[in-house]
Amino acid sequence: MPRTQKERNEETRRALLEAGSSLLREVGYARTSVAQITRRANRAHGTFYLHFKNKRDLVSVLLDDMADEARRHAREIWRAAPQVDAIWLGLRDFLARISPDRGLWSLLEEVVALEEDAAPLRSRLRRLYVEPILRGLQEHPDGLASRAPNIELVADLLASMGLHFARTGSLPASPDVTALHMTVVWCRAIGQPITETDLDKLRDMFATN
Amino acid sequence: MPRTQKERNEETRRALLEAGSSLLREVGYARTSVAQITRRANRAHGTFYLHFKNKRDLVSVLLDDMADEARRHAREIWRAAPQVDAIWLGLRDFLARISPDRGLWSLLEEVVALEEDAAPLRSRLRRLYVEPILRGLQEHPDGLASRAPNIELVADLLASMGLHFARTGSLPASPDVTALHMTVVWCRAIGQPITETDLDKLRDMFATN
Repeated sequence: MPRTQKERNEETRRALLEAGSSLLREVGYARTSVAQITRRANRAHGTFYLHFKNKRDLVSVLLDDMADEARRHAREIWRAAPQVDAIWLGLRDFLARISPDRGLWSLLEEVVALEEDAAPLRSRLRRLYVEPILRGLQEHPDGLASRAPNIELVADLLASMGLHFARTGSLPASPDVTALHMTVVWCRAIGQPITETDLDKLRDMFATN
Repeated sequence: MPRTQKERNEETRRALLEAGSSLLREVGYARTSVAQITRRANRAHGTFYLHFKNKRDLVSVLLDDMADEARRHAREIWRAAPQVDAIWLGLRDFLARISPDRGLWSLLEEVVALEEDAAPLRSRLRRLYVEPILRGLQEHPDGLASRAPNIELVADLLASMGLHFARTGSLPASPDVTALHMTVVWCRAIGQPITETDLDKLRDMFATN
């Protein structure tokens, strides 16, 4: 069956993203060239520029994909479970993703360190993580959110806890223990009641996984 | 009055640190050499190695000095003021320091991005900020700290909020507004009662400064 031009384009874009992703994680941003990416993807050099403005643009797409994937999971979780469990599951899921994604976070830091005008890339990525938290807070019936003059800032503060670990790639304790503590700090911060029974339940859940 | 060898040594060390600090902030880590640092400090090249192992060692000293200064202020504040005010003043002071220190934080990120074995440098710096918070939590009579299985982890989570801003150098709102929100989130997270009266008082304080 003959494929359409659109399908071939999409395949080429995917191949370039995959080649770029593996190469950038292997040797870093500074030492990766567009020529190397197209070579690894088995595409002509000029093809690259039909899909991306430059090397940094490809990094930007990789980061967006990573954030979209995290947001998709976050939405699933907020839909399915009650509040405290939802927060814990969401944080646990986020922390579990940090290790595999660590290469991408380091890449982002390298780009920002090397290119002075790259900071907006990080701000935009940050927003992708802050937004679902903000929506969660807005749906929260009472508690801190309804009284804080700047809910967006509260969401930003909560996101900071996780993003800090995402960047350094090192958790102070196991992912489950870190998620449990983040849940407690987070729930209390937003005024979501969390009881000893809730805590025991969470501890049981991670003990059996 | 003739100076002692020890005094001359200390003066040289200071000169190298100052030359290194200004040069590194101006052109970044990768583009600064030990030769350039000694030239700017008007010292012989070999002198550098009497005081520092290498360029990274000098960066490490600069970061320690920055953290020590912040800790010193934190201690002063915890000594002088009651709890909620103390937290707010401490956070406000920390955020006010972020702008001038931003160059050093970026430098740290550049070193970590460029040198694979530099991550412990960041972990050590992080500990310097986590420790005073941990001590604050341990002195806290009840609240979250006494019930959390891992207080150190709670301190780490609280530190993350501020360190994230320190690194990116961008606050979501003015330093005063950010400090106010951090205080609310932080106090609630550690179970420190914070009333509407406390909040009004803090708002008044930053309105008059």
